[in-house]
Amino acid sequence: MEKVDGRLVRGDQTRRAVLRRAVDIASVDGLEGLSIGRLATELGISKSGLFAHFGSKEELQLATIRAARRIYADAVVLPALEVEPGIQRVRKLSECWIDYSRRRVFPGGCFFQKVSHEYAARGGAVHEALAGVHREWMELMEDVVREAVDRGELAADPAQLAFDLNAYYEAANLASILHGNETGYDQASRSIGARLESAAR
Amino acid sequence: MEKVDGRLVRGDQTRRAVLRRAVDIASVDGLEGLSIGRLATELGISKSGLFAHFGSKEELQLATIRAARRIYADAVVLPALEVEPGIQRVRKLSECWIDYSRRRVFPGGCFFQKVSHEYAARGGAVHEALAGVHREWMELMEDVVREAVDRGELAADPAQLAFDLNAYYEAANLASILHGNETGYDQASRSIGARLESAAR
Repeated sequence: MEKVDGRLVRGDQTRRAVLRRAVDIASVDGLEGLSIGRLATELGISKSGLFAHFGSKEELQLATIRAARRIYADAVVLPALEVEPGIQRVRKLSECWIDYSRRRVFPGGCFFQKVSHEYAARGGAVHEALAGVHREWMELMEDVVREAVDRGELAADPAQLAFDLNAYYEAANLASILHGNETGYDQASRSIGARLESAAR
Repeated sequence: MEKVDGRLVRGDQTRRAVLRRAVDIASVDGLEGLSIGRLATELGISKSGLFAHFGSKEELQLATIRAARRIYADAVVLPALEVEPGIQRVRKLSECWIDYSRRRVFPGGCFFQKVSHEYAARGGAVHEALAGVHREWMELMEDVVREAVDRGELAADPAQLAFDLNAYYEAANLASILHGNETGYDQASRSIGARLESAAR
């Protein structure tokens, strides 16, 4: 789209502003805490305007998940993909994850950990979307580990090492939000270092 | 109390029935999903009767956390304490945790993981209570690991090993609820085995 009229530009800006606010709210209060009325009030937009963008609460929740996925990709995945494949990329992915949680890219800590727990035991489209992101993330980690294995830099089952690293990230994120301190990050960093050391060849 | 009158017994039975339902609801829908109205309807008790027991939603939430802590202690902690201190107790605690999640002692999976994520980024008495349970649990794990270290059965920093084991449990619990399969438990069991193997002396 090279030329867009004013309404389309404004519509797109509104949509982005709504979703940026929505991901922040959901990272603290959950996707259930999102309501079109609340967002309209907070952003000074009409409810009918918001309905025109999202149609229903579930549509808003699904759009919020997609927006959070893009922010997550920018913060965690893309910087790691700029590093050469292999052990360095595995290390970079871990650093980016801890940094993403520590600097509160989302004010409530990891968006996906928060809302995945919220919807894990429920059915529906939101659950399916979150299960899909989790699967995609674990496969990406596994691929990044496998590159290091294929280069002979690590001796490990890729899925198993990906499981362990992700477990350290998640445990650190929860401990840090719950206790308001850095202890979990220090512990996770040591665990990541030791786990990669034990798999190094 | 050797002799109690009928009203006290019935009051205590009502309280137990309410809390047993409340922990199950909260493990799926969260502590925010608890309401005195909903519980009264589901259990066929009057709202005023429930108010007499709990006073406020926050009191009900705090009582639900205490009830869940007792169920958790019965399922995970007490069976491990029946085993001799040392590496066997560390293994038993891990087995009990995986079993506790797998057989859905709470229908939504681990109660504490669920509601800790719900309240991690909020303030207040519920947050404080959950942070307290998390601290207590991590200290207990650390003590159990330290016994094995003191007996010369493991060479590890107790807090670090406790962090790792707990991370595997939590990651398995989330993966299992989100994907409705056992893969996470299998991965966690291998991770626990390998981690204890690497720390064995």
